[in-house]
Order: sequence, then C-alpha cells, then structure tokens
Amino acid sequence: MKKYIYADNAATTAIDENVLQSMQQYLRNEYGNASQPYSFGRTAKKAINDSRSVIASCIGAKAEEIFFTSCGTESDNWVIKNSFPYSSIITSCIEHHAILNACKAVSNNTEVVKLTVDRSGLVSLRDLDEALRNTVDDSRVLVSIMTANNEIGTIQPIKQLAEISHSHGAIFHTDAVQAVGHIKINVDEMGVDMLSASAHKFNGPKGIGFLYVRKGTAISPFIDGGLQENGMRAGTENVASIVGMATALKNNTNMLEASSKYIYELETRLIQRLEASDVEYIRNGSINHIPRNISISFKNSDGEMILHRMDLKGICISTGSACDSVRTQISHVIKSICVDPDYANGTIRISLGKNNTFEEVDTIAKELIGIVHSSCSHK
Amino acid sequence: MKKYIYADNAATTAIDENVLQSMQQYLRNEYGNASQPYSFGRTAKKAINDSRSVIASCIGAKAEEIFFTSCGTESDNWVIKNSFPYSSIITSCIEHHAILNACKAVSNNTEVVKLTVDRSGLVSLRDLDEALRNTVDDSRVLVSIMTANNEIGTIQPIKQLAEISHSHGAIFHTDAVQAVGHIKINVDEMGVDMLSASAHKFNGPKGIGFLYVRKGTAISPFIDGGLQENGMRAGTENVASIVGMATALKNNTNMLEASSKYIYELETRLIQRLEASDVEYIRNGSINHIPRNISISFKNSDGEMILHRMDLKGICISTGSACDSVRTQISHVIKSICVDPDYANGTIRISLGKNNTFEEVDTIAKELIGIVHSSCSHK
Repeated sequence: MKKYIYADNAATTAIDENVLQSMQQYLRNEYGNASQPYSFGRTAKKAINDSRSVIASCIGAKAEEIFFTSCGTESDNWVIKNSFPYSSIITSCIEHHAILNACKAVSNNTEVVKLTVDRSGLVSLRDLDEALRNTVDDSRVLVSIMTANNEIGTIQPIKQLAEISHSHGAIFHTDAVQAVGHIKINVDEMGVDMLSASAHKFNGPKGIGFLYVRKGTAISPFIDGGLQENGMRAGTENVASIVGMATALKNNTNMLEASSKYIYELETRLIQRLEASDVEYIRNGSINHIPRNISISFKNSDGEMILHRMDLKGICISTGSACDSVRTQISHVIKSICVDPDYANGTIRISLGKNNTFEEVDTIAKELIGIVHSSCSHK
Repeated sequence: MKKYIYADNAATTAIDENVLQSMQQYLRNEYGNASQPYSFGRTAKKAINDSRSVIASCIGAKAEEIFFTSCGTESDNWVIKNSFPYSSIITSCIEHHAILNACKAVSNNTEVVKLTVDRSGLVSLRDLDEALRNTVDDSRVLVSIMTANNEIGTIQPIKQLAEISHSHGAIFHTDAVQAVGHIKINVDEMGVDMLSASAHKFNGPKGIGFLYVRKGTAISPFIDGGLQENGMRAGTENVASIVGMATALKNNTNMLEASSKYIYELETRLIQRLEASDVEYIRNGSINHIPRNISISFKNSDGEMILHRMDLKGICISTGSACDSVRTQISHVIKSICVDPDYANGTIRISLGKNNTFEEVDTIAKELIGIVHSSCSHK
C-alpha cells in the first residue's frame, strides 16, 4: 500500500490499534445477540452496557442518557425529525448538511430559522434571543447549533446559547460530531439537552455513533421495531462497533490535553511555514477553534486544483466538508462567513490528527506553497 | 470461552471467517473516506461499488438499485416512513416489529390495514385483493409483506402478492431479512419493488443492511445529509461492513443449494427425534418454510423455562423473535396463527444454520425431550 500523508482527519480518522483489537472478539467469537436472554448473549449485553458507561463518563452524562445510532448523521436526523411536535427549529446557516437537509425535509410542517454567523463563523447570542422572541410558542422550539464547525473549526459559545434557549423554554441540541474526542465535552457544563457524535471522527470505527439525550427530554424513536436501546432505537445491536467506539473515546479523552497541545503545535508550525512564504492567503474561522481544522483560502487560486495536485504528491486534504465532495461550488460555510471573492475559490481544509508528525507538516507546507506558487504564475 | 451449541440463527449468525478477513484491510489500512476525491479514498469507493455489484447480482438486481443502510430495521423504517405520501399501507399481522411499529408510528396520517393469516401463517391472496379494493386511492397504497417469518419460517407467495398489488397500482415491499442468503431471492422473479435485508442474518457483520429499490420506484431519503448512496442515504460509508456483507452474501448464495439441503436434513433429524419420543408437541408454520426456523409448541409447557434450562445445558434457542425477548407474553405471531392455548405458552424456536452438526442436533433433541418430560411430570 502506498504511503500517504493523511491530513483530512475532519473527514474521517485512522482507527486506533487497540480499538480494532477490542472489536475482534465481538466480531468473531462473542457473536450472540445481546437482546437474547441466554448466557451466550450476556457477554455481548455486558459489553454494550460497559461501553455505554464509558462513553457517558467521557462526556459527563449518565449511562442511560446514551443511545447508540449508526452515525452522527442518524443522530442529527433523529433529533430534527423525531415526532415531538416542534413548531419551530432555530439553527445556523453553517451547520453540517445532516442538520440542514433534515431541516429541509421537515420544513413543510415546521418553521425553520437559520441564524447567520459573523466572519469568524460565530452565531450571535443576541440573534438567537431575538429569533426565540419571534417564535409563536417558545415551549415547542428546538435550537440546534453545532459545537464546532467541520470546515473552519470555529467553536460556538454553546453554554450561553443553551442558557438563552432554556430561558425561553426551548430544547437545545448540539451536533458535536467534530468536537467529541477533540475538546473537553461535559454535557452539564455545556447545558445541552441533546448531543450528536460519531465514532469515526475520533479514531473509532465507521458506522457507529450516539445521541446523548438528557433525562426528561421529550423525544420519540426515529427507528422503530424491537426494544433495543430501552425502546428508543430498534435494530440488533452492533456490539463490536459499540465496543470500538467506547475504546476510541476513552483513548482520546485520556490523552486529550496532550494531543490538543501537540496538534496545536503542528498547526502553529504549518501556519509559520505559510507565513514565512510569500503566498497570499487568509485563515478562516475563529481563534477559538478545535485543534485540527485549518481552513485556508489562497488568493486567485482553486481549492480543487490544489487538492488534486496535493493528491499527486501523496497528501490527503479537503476542499470543504467531506459530504460535499460531489459538489464543486463554494461551500455554504465559506459563503456564510463572506470570504473575499478573490480568495473563496482557493479554499482548502487541512485537518491534522494525533498521528501526524512535524515532518509531515513540513512536507504539507512545502508542497502547498509550491503548488500555489506554480498555479499563480500561470495566471 | 465456553462452547455453546448455537441454535438461534434466526436471531443472529456467526460471521464467516473469510467475511471477517475481507473487512480487516478496510478497518485498519484503507480507512480513507470513500466520498473524498483523492486517491486514498478511491480504494474504499471501489470496494463499496464492487460490493454493491456483488449484492445486486446475488438477488438479480442492478447495482444502482441497492442502497446500504445500518440494518434491516432501518430499511423497513425507511420504506414505511419515507415521505412519499401513501394514503394506505397494507401489511400482515405477523410482520416483524420493525414493520409493525413503524406502521404504528405513521398511523396518525396513514391508514394501516393488517391482513390476518391462516394457521400456517399464510396471507390470503383474496384478502389482499379485497383490502386493495377497499382503499380510497389505489395509486397511493404500499403493500408490505415479509418473505419469510422470523418465528415460524413460513414463506409467503410473494410473486402472487406482488402481482395482485401491482394490478391495483400499489407498490410492493417485502421484508426479506430472514430470507436473503437462505432461499433463492430474485427480485424480478418475485416482482417486488423494494426489499429489506440485514447482513448479520446471513453470516455477515452486525450493523449493516440494505434496501433494494426497483428503478423508478418513488422513495425519498430517510436519513438526510451528505450525498452518499446517490443522495439517498447520508452518512459516511461503513466500508468494512459493506465489504463484509457482500462477502457473506456471496458465500451463502454460492452454497445455497448445498446448505439448504444440509439444514433440511438437520431439521428432519431433529423432528424424527421428537417424533420418536412421547412428548406432545405441534410444529408451527407452513410446509413451505425457510430451512432453519423450527417453531415448536409443547403441550402444557413453558417456552421461557425451556429456554433457560436449555441454556444451562449450553444450548442457545429462542422463545420467539429476538427483538421480543424483553416481553414475556405469547408473541403476536403465535397468537395470529391461533396456536391451541394448551400449547401456545410452550412455544420455542430452534433455528439451525450451516455451522450446526448432526451431533449437535441429537444433543438438542435429547436435552429438549428431557426438559419437557421433567417439567410435565411436575404438573
């Protein structure tokens, strides 16, 4: 297999070796159905319960508030489309498409308000307050604002946004898919009622995620059937992936401080290299961002061209959110933060991870500067 | 690990060794996001496309008619709850709870008609025709009848049921979760418009399934977000499990004739052993059933007691569908086929698989007869 420099950790991450190991016995030997009452199902059932406790403790929740889903997108769809009759949903214009397109799907029956953001990608507390005042019935409003943006990394003031929402009697959800496993998450300190997460964003397996639902929050199942997940999410439990997700989150939570510091250092090195060059660029997002997401817009350049030339050098980066790779237009996030038109088309996302090295960052910077230089000289 | 005799293959199955092997490289090395345009995502993308073709060819479909989901339950929920505005859904009273509870969830806005079944568990063609005549607008009717029942194994006359549905302009879906990988499935010969399946029922991994949707059938996404699955099912692709599912279905399809024959022989041996004893029992379901599901009701006995005593002997069997294990009442299927009240409470399900041996079947029969004897003598 060819050796790549992988710098697209916001799209997906390499699975940790001990995560993969923790999954094997549930894939191979302990295949019993966790919902069956015989002994052979009990090891699987215990593994699920233990995983639930581990995950809960990583985010300051109670075990019974964690519901396993197949991915962050399912968690988001569950929240937005669940049958609790919201009259309005207030969200932001830079949410992931899992939120935005789910909102679109319910917009015939539910008013959807999308808050704008400032140039750093921040939602305004005042805007949220005003939007809540304008809703007909506060008690039936859902507010859904992401913890950290997947393209530009901006971290929202979730605690304050949740407080304002609660002061109006609204329910507060956060899509924390980019944040869980990368910054400290405590659902009580944040004051959120619901939170979405996805394992493959924090070095766990693909195809598994969870939804945190604070006890007492009204939500009905999105996927009906058997009585799994306390009757809240039907379908035979994906034991191996649940165990893998818990192992991964524990890994990342245990080394959160050290790896954040390390990834910030990688990021600083990358930016220093760009600063030392003469390429014209702007850095998108807020100073308060998750360690790994670096969104850069180069003047008079083309993000897609940069991506493909970097690919030829064996370096994986992104132009925008992974889920948008089929589209070629400027992403809704870059549009929303009003990036200068001379720069917007030249936007790329480099997302570093705990497995990257300083040497890799130096190579990324060197190749990037070379590509931007050579393409500009053709203009 | 303790050695069990596993005879609950309708609940879940052991993963085939080559399935597990086929998954490893996508879990460990080829972790790239399949929706990203760089080279490192292409191996994953190709693996997904190849898997789609393999699965399609196993059921006589076109690759673009296969959509990956997280499980059979999700596939069923997608069909029942998708936003195509059905005025009526006609289903049967012995469907899996994934269908029945999804129908319940939409019953405020959609008329739901549940057809009864005869004592062998068969839906009547005449009943379906009459139900279709009674619907207000034929063109907005969905008929959903399972291919094979998960408790009693009865195989429905899907071809005829689909024909009748189509003659009224209705759409026909079948929950084939118990059937795929165990009997020959050809969507054209069956004439179905949609079909649900789940990998862990055919020696594949848990947490992955698919929905077949015939080209031209109106259906909108159930999970919105990114553009994966041709815009029909959002969420980062679960590459390893998709590859595992394809490998498993290919395995089972290739050896379908041989393993069906073998499992029928196992079944015949088990029944012969019971016949040769003096325990009073009835066999539930139709002569035309999937090879593996053996539903038996013992006179004046207790299925739960039998399950637990078999468990003490290291044998895994079921009382009803796995998803119902939390409930203790007589299952909706056993009620629907009007099992004699003296027998209904003594119902168990033995579901054999390709990994079972004649020796195991002899042990199952011996222990079962012993348990039923000893419990009856206490009455």
